[in-house]
Formats: sequence, C-alpha cells, structure tokens
Amino acid sequence: MRIAVVAPSCPLKAKAAERVQAIVAARGDCELFIHPQSFLVEGHFAGPDSARLDALREVMADPSFDAVWFARGGYGSNRIAEAALEGLPEAARGKTYMGYSDAGFLLAGLYKAGVDVAWGPMAQDVMRSGGEAAVARALDWLVRRDPAALEPELDPPAMAFNLTVLSNLLGTPLEPDLAGVDLLIEEVSEQLYRIDRTMFHLTASANVRGVARLRLGRVSDILANDPEFAVDEAAIVEDWCARSGIPYGGRADIGHDAQNRVVPFGSRSH
Amino acid sequence: MRIAVVAPSCPLKAKAAERVQAIVAARGDCELFIHPQSFLVEGHFAGPDSARLDALREVMADPSFDAVWFARGGYGSNRIAEAALEGLPEAARGKTYMGYSDAGFLLAGLYKAGVDVAWGPMAQDVMRSGGEAAVARALDWLVRRDPAALEPELDPPAMAFNLTVLSNLLGTPLEPDLAGVDLLIEEVSEQLYRIDRTMFHLTASANVRGVARLRLGRVSDILANDPEFAVDEAAIVEDWCARSGIPYGGRADIGHDAQNRVVPFGSRSH
Repeated sequence: MRIAVVAPSCPLKAKAAERVQAIVAARGDCELFIHPQSFLVEGHFAGPDSARLDALREVMADPSFDAVWFARGGYGSNRIAEAALEGLPEAARGKTYMGYSDAGFLLAGLYKAGVDVAWGPMAQDVMRSGGEAAVARALDWLVRRDPAALEPELDPPAMAFNLTVLSNLLGTPLEPDLAGVDLLIEEVSEQLYRIDRTMFHLTASANVRGVARLRLGRVSDILANDPEFAVDEAAIVEDWCARSGIPYGGRADIGHDAQNRVVPFGSRSH
Repeated sequence: MRIAVVAPSCPLKAKAAERVQAIVAARGDCELFIHPQSFLVEGHFAGPDSARLDALREVMADPSFDAVWFARGGYGSNRIAEAALEGLPEAARGKTYMGYSDAGFLLAGLYKAGVDVAWGPMAQDVMRSGGEAAVARALDWLVRRDPAALEPELDPPAMAFNLTVLSNLLGTPLEPDLAGVDLLIEEVSEQLYRIDRTMFHLTASANVRGVARLRLGRVSDILANDPEFAVDEAAIVEDWCARSGIPYGGRADIGHDAQNRVVPFGSRSH
C-alpha cells in the first residue's frame, strides 16, 4: 500500500513528518511518500495555489499510489478544488482520499466526482496529545479498512464536515447531494453566535433538509461570546434541526482532536 | 414623520437612546418612538426571539409609523426574519426600513417582499466617535430623502450587505434577486483568511454572479491572521471577482463606522 501525502491547505511541520514516518516504518504494512510541497510555506498556505494544485494533481494522476492523505487542514483547499477536479485522470479514481476540516472542500468535490473519500485524521495530527493513535487509526483504515477506526454509530450513506466548511461549500460546484445521508458535523474555534448563524444558513438549504439525520461531533475551543450566549452548542443544533424538520441524531465521535474517527463518505464502508 | 425604533438583534444602550432623542428634539422634523423592547437583554439578544418578533411586528403593523429604524446590529435578526415576513400587513408596506450589519437579514427579506428598505446608520451609532453625524445622515434620508446622505457613486438598482451576513443568507428564503445590482459589501472583525473563504462562497453563487458590479466598502478591525495573510482585503475581493467573472467596481463609502452612507435597495432613490 503506497500512500501519498500532500498539503492543499496549510503546511506540514517537519517534526510531524518524522514522527509519522517512524510510525509507518514500525507498522511495515505501508509506504508513505510525503510530497516536498507539503513543507512549502507562503503566508497562510503550503505554497502558492499553483504549487498546491500541481502537487495534488501529480499524486492523483500517479497510478503507483493507492491513497492520497491530506497533510493538514487550516485554510486553502477551496482555492484549488475545482481546478483539481478538472479532467480527472483515470488513476485518480482508483484511490482513497482522507482528511478533515478544511480538506472537506476536496472530500466533497471528489466524492461528487465519484471517488472514494473518507473523513479521518491527518498526518499533522501526530503532534496532538495522543496523536499517534489518531495516525494509527487513519492508516488502519487506509491500509486494511479496519472497522475499529470507524465512527461507531454510522448508518451509511454517511458524510462528515466541519460546520463552517460545509456552510461555505453550499451553492458552490463542490456541494454534494446530501439526500438520505447520515450527516456528521463538528466545529472548532468559533463563537456560539457564529455557530447559531451558520446553523441558520445550513438548515435553510433544501439539500441539507434532505439528510436522514444530522449528528453533532465535538465543538472544541469555543471562543468567548460577549455577552454570554444563553444556550450551548447542542441546544443550538437541536433548535435549528427542530425548526427545519431535520431529524437530530445526537452526538457523534468526530472532532478536531486525537479521538477523531473515520467516516467513509457514501455507502462505501469497505 | 413618525419613526419607530426596535431591536431585532442586540439591545440599544440607554445612553444612546437619550442622545438620539436629543438630536431628534433639536431637529424638530420628526418624532421617534423607541419601543421598550429595544432595551431588553437576554444573553446575546435584545430579549427572547418572541419579544423581538412581537415588537417588530407591532411597529410594522402600526399605520401611524412612517419608518422603522433598527436600533443596532450584532446578531439575531435572522432568527425572526421569516416569521416577521409572514402575512405581511398592509401597513407594513407603506414604510421605509433602515439599518445595516446583522439587520441585513431583514433588509433582504423585506426588500424581497416588495418593501422599501435602505442600508444606513442605526441609533446605536450615536455612541461612535462622530456618531451624531451618522444619526443625522440616517434621519436626513428617512425624513426628507436628502441625496447628500447617499453613498456617492450608486448606480441603481443597488444593495449593500455585510459580507458575512450576505454569505449566510444565500440559499435561505431571505435571499433577494441580485440581477443587475450595484452590490456593495463591507466587513468588520474578521480574519483575512475568513474573508477569502467567504468570498469563495459568495462568488460561486449564480445569483451573485448576476450583479452589475461588486464594490468593496471599508473592512475594519481586521483580526490578526497567523501566519500573516499574503494579500489585503481589496486584493482578495478583486481576485475572487476576476475568478468568477464579476465586474469589480472599486471601493465604496460604507462600513462599520460613523462615515457609513445610505444605500436604498433597488431603484428606489426617492
């Protein structure tokens, strides 16, 4: 199993790359090619749009890779997603793509194009406390489709997104068909009033209203609301589900943390 | 001219109400009814949804008011906008509605319902440095349609929105038809990466792509981007306009400040 790592959003740290390669070497069941683009730095991004796009298209088109693993989130994959999907080469279709957070823009577009994608931990997660387990979980899924890596209550077809990313891809060419989907969302570093506003936007969408149920992963590092917001994140999500007639399915085991589980998009749980 | 003030988002400060009433008394050309709901406080909001909705519907339905002036932005008008527009009473149609920022959710919905709305300063703006001039500008427009209050380069039909508010109302029942519109946007207290992401979302919309041109008001209190974003807000907006084929019309004289000008929606410049 050969896995390519590229960074369509923000750069991978050298220390993270070292640690992940050490884990891979100890496993002995896969080989990791970390594309040098992953370490480029240009302002916010892992190199300019052109470098991030070229690296992504290069590994997508290379039939020797079985999977493409996104190095890290942050921001920026939306800037190259449409171009990455243009004239998708045949070799790009035989792979699995994994990532989360900002990589959701690519997961959405790739899934819509009929490709196998999964929400799951990324290489940079090795730097979190407990991050080795997150990396092991991602590789267990990529290499041997270990069901222990999966979010435990998935009712396929499923999808998972960062709430803000999903809100920002509605109405764009990346928006996938959500009909009948077990939709998992999570959030990080937002104020509760923003989460409320984004839920307003999300649940007004006819496409989102077609999901089978909406489940809420962890909402971490909530920024201070001034003045304090009256209710918590679960109450906000339940409220907007009730207003829009979307079945609320309770909590989900995903988030911006080392416990983050794998969610294969669609009905592809193998 | 009788003007009603209500607060569909965040509460008005008592001190601001005093100052605005003093300005109104000195003018002698209008009368201001500040609905007591404007001073309610419940967490983030000027009272619960029901109180904000009731006050708004009350002044909308009262034929003795010629205008409804929103007290303040913040967050929350989206939570009551659809309900406020249900079964719009005839008396609601004969008035002008003014506000900006979060009030954009209501401006959009009211305009879509065929009512006369304008982007412009709000009562709470009197507390800004130079805020008396902002309040005078708003009243000059509401009372006597003073063209000096207008954004100077409007090419009607025009509309103005806070960028994040506009992004969050796309795809909702509040979204107005933007075809051929001179669209002005502004922003406050966001990081540049967020502005870039929101512009991605905005300019992917077929509706937004139908505007005559997009102009950028002031972007104030930009939050630190870590690491620094490579380009500034004007470059971001120009870039997304170029990518999406939207004519970029340069800067506009609106923003979260005392200089904020009036933008009557549509072709109604009288």
